[in-house]
Amino acid sequence: MKNYTGQQPLVTSISVVAEPPSLQDNTADIDRLRIAVRKKLPPTLEGRPVIIPFAAMAGLGRRFRKAGFAGRALVNVLPHELQLVDFCKDTSDKIPAMALDLGTTHLEATLVDVSGDEIIAHTHAPNSQMRYGADILSRIHYAGSHDEGTNGLVKLQQAVVTTINEMVDSLAGEAGIEPDAIHALSVSGNTTMVHLLLGLSPYHICREPYTPLVGSPDPFFAVEIGVHINKTAPVWILPSIGSYFGGDLISGILASGLDQMEKTSMLIDVGTNAEVVLGNRDWLIACAGAAGPALEGGVAKMGMRAEPGAIEHVLLDRESWQLQLKTIDDQPAVGICGSGLIELVAQLFLAGIVDIRGKLCRDTAAGSEKRRTFVQDRLVESEEGLSFVVTPAKESGHGKPVLLAQVDLDAMMRSKAAMYAILTTLTSQVGVEFSDLDHIYVAGAFGKHIDPVAAITLGMLPDLPLSTYIPVGNSSLHGAERILLSEEALLCSMEIGRKITYIELNVNQEFMLRFSGSRFIPHTDPALFPSVPVVRIEDIPEKG
Amino acid sequence: MKNYTGQQPLVTSISVVAEPPSLQDNTADIDRLRIAVRKKLPPTLEGRPVIIPFAAMAGLGRRFRKAGFAGRALVNVLPHELQLVDFCKDTSDKIPAMALDLGTTHLEATLVDVSGDEIIAHTHAPNSQMRYGADILSRIHYAGSHDEGTNGLVKLQQAVVTTINEMVDSLAGEAGIEPDAIHALSVSGNTTMVHLLLGLSPYHICREPYTPLVGSPDPFFAVEIGVHINKTAPVWILPSIGSYFGGDLISGILASGLDQMEKTSMLIDVGTNAEVVLGNRDWLIACAGAAGPALEGGVAKMGMRAEPGAIEHVLLDRESWQLQLKTIDDQPAVGICGSGLIELVAQLFLAGIVDIRGKLCRDTAAGSEKRRTFVQDRLVESEEGLSFVVTPAKESGHGKPVLLAQVDLDAMMRSKAAMYAILTTLTSQVGVEFSDLDHIYVAGAFGKHIDPVAAITLGMLPDLPLSTYIPVGNSSLHGAERILLSEEALLCSMEIGRKITYIELNVNQEFMLRFSGSRFIPHTDPALFPSVPVVRIEDIPEKG
Repeated sequence: MKNYTGQQPLVTSISVVAEPPSLQDNTADIDRLRIAVRKKLPPTLEGRPVIIPFAAMAGLGRRFRKAGFAGRALVNVLPHELQLVDFCKDTSDKIPAMALDLGTTHLEATLVDVSGDEIIAHTHAPNSQMRYGADILSRIHYAGSHDEGTNGLVKLQQAVVTTINEMVDSLAGEAGIEPDAIHALSVSGNTTMVHLLLGLSPYHICREPYTPLVGSPDPFFAVEIGVHINKTAPVWILPSIGSYFGGDLISGILASGLDQMEKTSMLIDVGTNAEVVLGNRDWLIACAGAAGPALEGGVAKMGMRAEPGAIEHVLLDRESWQLQLKTIDDQPAVGICGSGLIELVAQLFLAGIVDIRGKLCRDTAAGSEKRRTFVQDRLVESEEGLSFVVTPAKESGHGKPVLLAQVDLDAMMRSKAAMYAILTTLTSQVGVEFSDLDHIYVAGAFGKHIDPVAAITLGMLPDLPLSTYIPVGNSSLHGAERILLSEEALLCSMEIGRKITYIELNVNQEFMLRFSGSRFIPHTDPALFPSVPVVRIEDIPEKG
Repeated sequence: MKNYTGQQPLVTSISVVAEPPSLQDNTADIDRLRIAVRKKLPPTLEGRPVIIPFAAMAGLGRRFRKAGFAGRALVNVLPHELQLVDFCKDTSDKIPAMALDLGTTHLEATLVDVSGDEIIAHTHAPNSQMRYGADILSRIHYAGSHDEGTNGLVKLQQAVVTTINEMVDSLAGEAGIEPDAIHALSVSGNTTMVHLLLGLSPYHICREPYTPLVGSPDPFFAVEIGVHINKTAPVWILPSIGSYFGGDLISGILASGLDQMEKTSMLIDVGTNAEVVLGNRDWLIACAGAAGPALEGGVAKMGMRAEPGAIEHVLLDRESWQLQLKTIDDQPAVGICGSGLIELVAQLFLAGIVDIRGKLCRDTAAGSEKRRTFVQDRLVESEEGLSFVVTPAKESGHGKPVLLAQVDLDAMMRSKAAMYAILTTLTSQVGVEFSDLDHIYVAGAFGKHIDPVAAITLGMLPDLPLSTYIPVGNSSLHGAERILLSEEALLCSMEIGRKITYIELNVNQEFMLRFSGSRFIPHTDPALFPSVPVVRIEDIPEKG
């Protein structure tokens, strides 16, 4: 984590020593506190109105008096006002705040001490809205429905708030504090997830012209959405730009620093959608498309999140015809995560078992004896049709084989084609070549675990030097952390929203053409991928 | 009511016509509305942040879309921000708002159309907190108690909110609108009543050094205190200066315009306390003291509010020895209100039945035959001791005599002494003579009904030309109305709080001396009251 010490966090404490009331000065407690705080504001905050929210008033007055009119005041630092919300005597200056990545399938959060610039706890949980719909479209549909007299929107909001509150408890437990001691929340999520959290109808998000109800909500208090951290904790929602370009990507831009760079770079975030931003400190252009599902886990039958037992690395030795698998935590395999899938398909392609059209290829006539045996053993007819056995039943963690079916492969081919089509559409919009890019930041579990060589082999990512690719982790979460730590970042997040140009792929003809051209491995135009070998089975070594 | 048309009210509507969303511009609805409103702000409001409170967001988005992105936006105009809270298609520009005088015993309210500068409804009601304590001290005591597991403070808050909500229904009914259509509330009350309304502990208000919890609360939403007008209606509380100098008097200053005048004037408001302000546009000095109870009704046994059946005017013809009474609405007498009490005692003093010490005087030796008969008939021994029969049982409205007992007289004498002592203490603080005063504004029912001649006769008000005294009605309510209609008045109300000097009489030695000197009729120094005759029974005409 970058060092934000010395920057202005979203919540700050101001040391105050006020004269106790006397007959000569019986100014009311709250007014006395406000005056004392105003006098102690750092120069950067001077002149901003200091207001006392109604919900904070009674407790603030009580604690200020109990502390003997001296201690530290807690202040929410918002762009146009300072909210005086709490007061305590203790000299500890720890101010815990929560950063939340509000994913469609999964939520991840950290507890940050904003005064010490330190992560003090971490947690994650599946989004309990999943039971009402696996993807965004089905949730939007459910939000408009009525079930047992209850509005679907209300149920979805309650579900995600329940998940968040469980995470609050987990973070507080890990840090050894009460949930009430958490004094701010920043939320980074896609546009639909933000609407559902705020109890706002997402109806128009998926209907032309794809207009959200809100893009840049003003901050509000945690209690207003039922999140049981301190009731006067400000909730800052990362702004979104369009229905399909959410605060999670704004957050990613913040985390990568793309908007501050002199040279042009790119940010790729593969979640439920693939979201891509291109630009530098002068301009930003972005688009998003449905490239993710096959890679994110949960869609392909054997797909799963990057959890224990997920196959994350695959190597097929084309001499010994041994398939080497690496699972997370070295647990027996139970499925395959996105990075594992990409490596598997790349390895199968290089071995001639997946052809350039992305089809499993039963041809056992060519190649060595060992290869023929391998193909015969591994390619089977399952319920899903022709399938490749990644892990046989007797070696797996759940007693069933881990299979790659042709349908899974087809989904992956669509995803990889969409990804490359998105990247080329975006660069062509501004006349930038891939080779002009300083760096490509790859976010998420995808970015953390993916082998760029495998992704290039499949024609998913452009054929650039490997040093171009930089994994940035959960950039949605990291951006939310920055919001808590630095007002500069917070103001940037709004500025990004204003200066970015968003390309709507749903109505983009060029994208559809590029998508078709990308549905081969690596591409209909192999010259775009000079580093990827042309696979001929007869060239595969016969030594084994 | 002064004409406030053209001034900036607390809630205002802005006509907006926005482009509907399209694929070329799919800005979110709420952001679209905010941009459209910003463009249409009048020059005086430009530059103030436009924020959208969380509670307003969902409805605002829905109504903006339903109206076809054109109509009028409702904006709360607060000193440091504009809150965009509602949207409607209709072209009516009526914006009803409620002004409330929050009295200890009685509440009075008007519904004001702030866009048309017109009173559209009026109501009043007893404060249902009365059942928990008749006066401020007993309510403060009750607020700290626990009764059947419920905090007294909570009960007091609920009681007054219940009364207010009944008044809301009454106002809405009279105006033919829904309570939800009331879009702002201004409240003028004494410091304790404001604390109880806001659910804030009044504990320290009555304990040295008499420090309230809050003097100048920031505006909040009606829903936060359970008042069922529109949930995003701003509530503006008139600021108070000290525990015994509340927003009701700031409101009175606003209504009288004292703070804007070139010449020095005085404002007297007799409610539960007598509150007095002296000053002009350059300086203001104020104090308050317990001069009111005997005059306000409810304390003296036969005292009552100025309601039907209350004796409001008294004339004792000292020739015919007929006692002429005027009751409100000419109903049979059931009690006596403050103005009636003052006239009664003045008349009895002039008739030698009350002596200069304020004692009922049984001396029947002197005067005419008719006088002796009158005194014999009217002075009786009741449960309360020696008493004057104002209305005999057979003529009264409740079948019991209306009596002035010596205890009632004693209370009145204390009140009148306190009043004059307050006025002289205040003027002497700044070296102003009564004769220097341009006007004396007298607020409340007291000011409306009192006969200055009678008050001067008793030595309650200074002996000045009658044209000096100007009744200003319920100035607490009128000030609250001004707050709704004019931002200038709202800013003035805060300015008054800053520029006023408050004299604490509870610790003022001079006041105690002056109080003693004032416990005679008209005064120990009759030279101060040249217009008041020296009463000698033998001088009373014998003609009758």
